[in-house]
Amino acid sequence: MSDAPKPETGRPKARAPRGFVDRRAAALAAERRILEAVSRVYESYGFEALETGAFEYADALGKFLPDADRPNEGVFALRDDDEEWMALRYDLTAPLARFVAQNWEGLPKPFRRYAWGKVWRNEKPGPGRWREFVQCDADTVGSARPEADAEIIAMAVEGFAAAGLARDAYVLKINNRKLLNGLLTAAGVAAEGQKLAVLRAVDKLDRLGLEGVKLLLGAGRKDESGAFTRGAELQTDAIDAVLAFVSAGQGGRAATLDRLANVIGGSAEADEGLAELAGVSAGLAAFGIGEDQALFEPSVVRGLEYYTGAVFEAELLGETTDEAGEPTRFGSIGGGGRYDDLVARFTGERVPATGFSFGVSRLAAALAASGRADVAEARGPVVVIAFDQARMADYVAVAAELRAAGLAAEVYLGGSGMRAQMKYADRRLSPAAVILGEDEIAAGRVTVKDLDLGRQLAAGVADNKAWREDRPGQVTAARADLVATVRAIVGRGR
Amino acid sequence: MSDAPKPETGRPKARAPRGFVDRRAAALAAERRILEAVSRVYESYGFEALETGAFEYADALGKFLPDADRPNEGVFALRDDDEEWMALRYDLTAPLARFVAQNWEGLPKPFRRYAWGKVWRNEKPGPGRWREFVQCDADTVGSARPEADAEIIAMAVEGFAAAGLARDAYVLKINNRKLLNGLLTAAGVAAEGQKLAVLRAVDKLDRLGLEGVKLLLGAGRKDESGAFTRGAELQTDAIDAVLAFVSAGQGGRAATLDRLANVIGGSAEADEGLAELAGVSAGLAAFGIGEDQALFEPSVVRGLEYYTGAVFEAELLGETTDEAGEPTRFGSIGGGGRYDDLVARFTGERVPATGFSFGVSRLAAALAASGRADVAEARGPVVVIAFDQARMADYVAVAAELRAAGLAAEVYLGGSGMRAQMKYADRRLSPAAVILGEDEIAAGRVTVKDLDLGRQLAAGVADNKAWREDRPGQVTAARADLVATVRAIVGRGR
Repeated sequence: MSDAPKPETGRPKARAPRGFVDRRAAALAAERRILEAVSRVYESYGFEALETGAFEYADALGKFLPDADRPNEGVFALRDDDEEWMALRYDLTAPLARFVAQNWEGLPKPFRRYAWGKVWRNEKPGPGRWREFVQCDADTVGSARPEADAEIIAMAVEGFAAAGLARDAYVLKINNRKLLNGLLTAAGVAAEGQKLAVLRAVDKLDRLGLEGVKLLLGAGRKDESGAFTRGAELQTDAIDAVLAFVSAGQGGRAATLDRLANVIGGSAEADEGLAELAGVSAGLAAFGIGEDQALFEPSVVRGLEYYTGAVFEAELLGETTDEAGEPTRFGSIGGGGRYDDLVARFTGERVPATGFSFGVSRLAAALAASGRADVAEARGPVVVIAFDQARMADYVAVAAELRAAGLAAEVYLGGSGMRAQMKYADRRLSPAAVILGEDEIAAGRVTVKDLDLGRQLAAGVADNKAWREDRPGQVTAARADLVATVRAIVGRGR
Repeated sequence: MSDAPKPETGRPKARAPRGFVDRRAAALAAERRILEAVSRVYESYGFEALETGAFEYADALGKFLPDADRPNEGVFALRDDDEEWMALRYDLTAPLARFVAQNWEGLPKPFRRYAWGKVWRNEKPGPGRWREFVQCDADTVGSARPEADAEIIAMAVEGFAAAGLARDAYVLKINNRKLLNGLLTAAGVAAEGQKLAVLRAVDKLDRLGLEGVKLLLGAGRKDESGAFTRGAELQTDAIDAVLAFVSAGQGGRAATLDRLANVIGGSAEADEGLAELAGVSAGLAAFGIGEDQALFEPSVVRGLEYYTGAVFEAELLGETTDEAGEPTRFGSIGGGGRYDDLVARFTGERVPATGFSFGVSRLAAALAASGRADVAEARGPVVVIAFDQARMADYVAVAAELRAAGLAAEVYLGGSGMRAQMKYADRRLSPAAVILGEDEIAAGRVTVKDLDLGRQLAAGVADNKAWREDRPGQVTAARADLVATVRAIVGRGR
């Protein structure tokens, strides 16, 4: 059944498959906060929830996986018992296109849906590159209006804010595929290979700057390691046009459009792209999206075969530090655009569509690294110490009383003694332990131990002498005052 | 890539794979309400969230899929590019066992986790039988105490209540695998095939009654269709013992235990099982779980190779009606038990564990059918009618104002006229439409249309004559009173 080498015991080795990750409470809480916040924004804009299955027929997914040349490449595919190939979805847009094509007649139009869920990519795993991750999308299907694009961008902006991302921590870059096509026409680039080389060079503006792009448009570029990338071998005036195009993104949206018109205006496709962006700009103004939040950036390329009009890319600005204190760039935390051909694959009829996808894991990582996320550690419950099997009903009653008062609580149910139980509570990051020994029970009292204080003392945060006067490490109170006593201690530790 | 017959156009057919379902807003909202309610209960008991990947190595999943004899049978498996077999998880317990074995040293003990997520079964799909569904589990790993079982049951009871299930709508049946083994000893059943036949007969008490079980324990039984099932061919006194065993479940937990001791007491395993159940009973009393909510039912069998001690089964009582008004039984809406061997597969060391799994889809269906779920239809947003492209900024401002006041709202972004827009809002189940024509804009006013009233009139629920006096179908108000006007209309429609 498996060719994996097994330990000599003959027992399987306990390990997760490559590229799949186990996630515990703190990571999950951060992700759920994002999904809930963004879902609320989507719903407030009138988008309805939709969930499709994990599998699609492979022919329904088609060749739309970015950067994959062969069918089934990059996806997890298997043959069903009726011999049809199925594959796990690699994004949420391809299943949406299938759903819309299948149910077109019965859907309200435009059809506006949001969705979140796992997607899978059968790629080589690496640090931070998982083969399973969460996407969270909103799409409007059946509207060609530029306001639909503007609305999608407005929701992205509001979603980032709701998730806790600072307004100046990122920027949303907008471009239009038709401008790029207009540029290729204006620069006289006709051969497919040369087109691709030009677009790849444009796409690298962010990383290589104008000088690097210029080399890639001309004879080619040698990188720091000495590796040489062949250039697009454009003529000088064509190179100048491309450089003027990629430099047009400074300043406000209207100014960018003016500069772009000077470089590429005149061809039908370029003019169409410019008109669409002008419509998006007016829409953004209506939705109250500032020029500093969503700007036109002609160098944004994104998935080449996929988008047909406007494209969006949300990028983190500046550097943050990772857990080891090293500076790190997260780059893209979301993106999308207009893809008017996706439903036509099934129906033959072009249906205008536009959408945005949040990179939830990256956003969570960015929030955590920026220190802005309210990434509370996953706090454990109040732990009721178990001394005596015969008193179990008393311990259970204490825990139930705390839960009824809204405090998470459990009775320790392992087989170890007092010391191990306190260690257990500490490891769970519990705020308090409740001690109900024979003495307490006989006296109708209860002892509550402040575990946060213990952790602060151990970490040198609290002062050993001061706390004995101001903040006792434990309190013994009447059993009737259990909830108030625990609340006082839990409250001050947070 | 696919052998599926394509339409003559050469385009793929838009369809979801067999056994996978698309779910829209109302179904998702019902499911999310259950998951949130149950998660809150789990967290209040001190269980931490855990999420593992969709895939496990096939050898890690092992042969624990109920009712599957061959490896990979019943699961979706594929070979990774390093030649190892991976399979999609078929439940949340096998991945937990792998996680615990992998991380044992660093985990708090007992390790208490809850999890929810999709699981996949590669089975023949049928009506109501999906190949992908949601489970929601809590497990305690590392506690052999009967209170751990009692706590799991208490959380199940509290979880059902939090999800909205009436206390008298279901019952939680508890048994212990060791009692069944004790029964086989007491009845003198030693051959494996005969054991299985006896347990299968016991398992059918619910469906066939005592008479049917008696036939299956003896010579065999012919069903209504005339098909004959061979019996276990027990002697008369053995049959009597089994029937006394399965009949012992009436009345309270203590009475059941007494009756069971009379039938099977004496063998080491039976006595161990009886002692464990006595401990669970005391624990249940401490947790405040009544005899009518969780009872001992000796006929409960569940997955034969899986459980090692206590087993739990939550069953809906009575019949409900489905969407077509037909009476329907949902049966099991959750279950679990003690499985002390699962981690040992990896480590060689037995680790006591117990858990419960909610059947979320079935529970949602049961709540919907019983009419007790607050299954609100998925209400659409307030729709702002779009008359004129030049006025789009005004429409957008209206929608933004409504959203800021906490009302979901959108501007219609399709290309159709007034009539189609009203139909769109109706199809979305929107409570109101906002009309901002040239007249309204010139007069600084706004018209709000009550769409719920329209629906009630169409359905004959509201009286045409009465509403004209008491409840106008639309209101024109000052633009400044937009929010208050919409609120008044949205509020009365609900």
